[in-house]
Amino acid sequence: MNNRRRRIYEGKGKILYEGPEPGTLVQFFKDDTTAFNKKKHEIIDGKGVINNRISEFVFTHLNRIGIPTHFIRRLNMREQLIREVEMIPLEIVVRNVAAGELATRLGIEEGLVLPRSIIEFYYKSDALDDPMVSEEHITAFGWASPQELDDVMALAIRINDFLTGLFLGVGIQLVDFKIECGRLYEGDMMRIILADEISPDSCRLWDIETRERLDKDRFRKDLGGLIEAYQEVARRLGIINENEPIRGTGPVLVKTD
Amino acid sequence: MNNRRRRIYEGKGKILYEGPEPGTLVQFFKDDTTAFNKKKHEIIDGKGVINNRISEFVFTHLNRIGIPTHFIRRLNMREQLIREVEMIPLEIVVRNVAAGELATRLGIEEGLVLPRSIIEFYYKSDALDDPMVSEEHITAFGWASPQELDDVMALAIRINDFLTGLFLGVGIQLVDFKIECGRLYEGDMMRIILADEISPDSCRLWDIETRERLDKDRFRKDLGGLIEAYQEVARRLGIINENEPIRGTGPVLVKTD
Ligand SMILES: Nc1ncnc2c1ncn2[C@@H]1O[C@H](COP(=O)(O)OP(=O)(O)O)[C@@H](O)[C@H]1O
Ligand SMILES: Nc1ncnc2c1ncn2[C@@H]1O[C@H](COP(=O)(O)OP(=O)(O)O)[C@@H](O)[C@H]1O
Ligand SMILES: [Mg+2]
Ligand SMILES: [Mg+2]
Repeated sequence: MNNRRRRIYEGKGKILYEGPEPGTLVQFFKDDTTAFNKKKHEIIDGKGVINNRISEFVFTHLNRIGIPTHFIRRLNMREQLIREVEMIPLEIVVRNVAAGELATRLGIEEGLVLPRSIIEFYYKSDALDDPMVSEEHITAFGWASPQELDDVMALAIRINDFLTGLFLGVGIQLVDFKIECGRLYEGDMMRIILADEISPDSCRLWDIETRERLDKDRFRKDLGGLIEAYQEVARRLGIINENEPIRGTGPVLVKTD
Repeated sequence: MNNRRRRIYEGKGKILYEGPEPGTLVQFFKDDTTAFNKKKHEIIDGKGVINNRISEFVFTHLNRIGIPTHFIRRLNMREQLIREVEMIPLEIVVRNVAAGELATRLGIEEGLVLPRSIIEFYYKSDALDDPMVSEEHITAFGWASPQELDDVMALAIRINDFLTGLFLGVGIQLVDFKIECGRLYEGDMMRIILADEISPDSCRLWDIETRERLDKDRFRKDLGGLIEAYQEVARRLGIINENEPIRGTGPVLVKTD
């Protein structure tokens, strides 16, 4: 990697570098896998490579159907060129099926199809453990304006429609997913666009036949086989074929599950 | 008390009995004082009597300014006659100043005046510890319709305006308060009305001069002097005079702080 590039931010799963042109960044996908606000942390060899590819695939198709995203192009195995945006400090979660925190908090059995899709907001703050917030908090504290929130929700709903269809087509149920959005300023115009990533790290994906989890819950719940599951998702989406090396450039020597 | 009356429901702080006429109930105020979902529980002699009086006072005035409530009239020291409603299973919290759960969850210093009043919803469930929910959850699970939620929020804002003024007039800052609402069916009409109680059990009330807490936080935070604080609120509102007995019918023999 180019070491003279300025590092802008290092997060839990990615690094942002200064991009080649003003208004651009390079997003580097690490193998670091964290859960429960970093209380659980492991390096899973090759994860960053698959997520870079899956996120590229999803963002490319979202761009094509007119959903604005920060994605410009993939640069290499672990990096993509993106548009720099002013992040809205929220994790926007769309849920179709009860799982995770929603199931726990509202006492609903995991796997129950929700009466309708539910959008949730979490305030992005490691120090506060990403607390759930409502539109009231968001607008009162100025994290986003009511108009911006409407735009965010409209994006979230469209993305949910697209992803639900995409995964259904490959035998996967989209249980829920998390997105992050930001403000893109173009002249005196401002648009809300999709940023960050969409990958098995940020979605719950269940095999429709076997109910097997093909997402980060494998890590959260110590089920093992995370890389194999992510690879399966990529394979079904037609992104990688089984023989393509994803762990560095050498052959895969050790199975991780 | 009349023991042949049918008891409909016994909660943490009140008992509901069948009322004298269909569509009415008798709400009995107990001395039981609980916090943290009943993990903390004490009997505080006389509390029910004061809350019955304060709630009567507030609801009477809310009725007068056209805010519909379940309150019909006080029957005796501990009881009031109310209209039975179909409860909406939500605690509606209005906050003007950061305190309690909001301060903790969002990392805001207690006492900071909020940029604007914030309405929060908690799903009323002892088993789930009253989890915070948003409009999305409420409408998706059908706990209230979007139209009903709009009515609830309009009520909450009007009540906040009235209570803020009322307490300001007697040197008290209304930090936050909790209400519960229900559906009143009249013929083929349905209206959302205010139910339950408004008392120092359900408000945060700070003395404007001394910042002293005149509410249930005295119990939550083991500050002592709860009855004296509630009595001070009642006294300032002109409800009770210092010599009126509130502990049973006999004289006050022991001070509780
Ligand atoms: N287009 C973008 N412009 C600026 N920041 C972005 C963009 N896309 C994502 N980000 C931010 O970059 C970081 C990505 O790294 P990540 O490891 O996910 O961090 P975190 O641990 O904060 O979630 C996130 O904080 C995310 O909000
Ligand atoms: N007008 C009303 N009609 C029917 N139920 C009511 C009315 N007002 C209040 N309630 C309900 O009566 C109960 C009051 O008792 P309380 O001790 O506060 O119970 P809880 O422990 O459930 O909060 C509450 O569950 C409240 O929702
Ligand atoms: Mg992240
Ligand atoms: Mg109650």
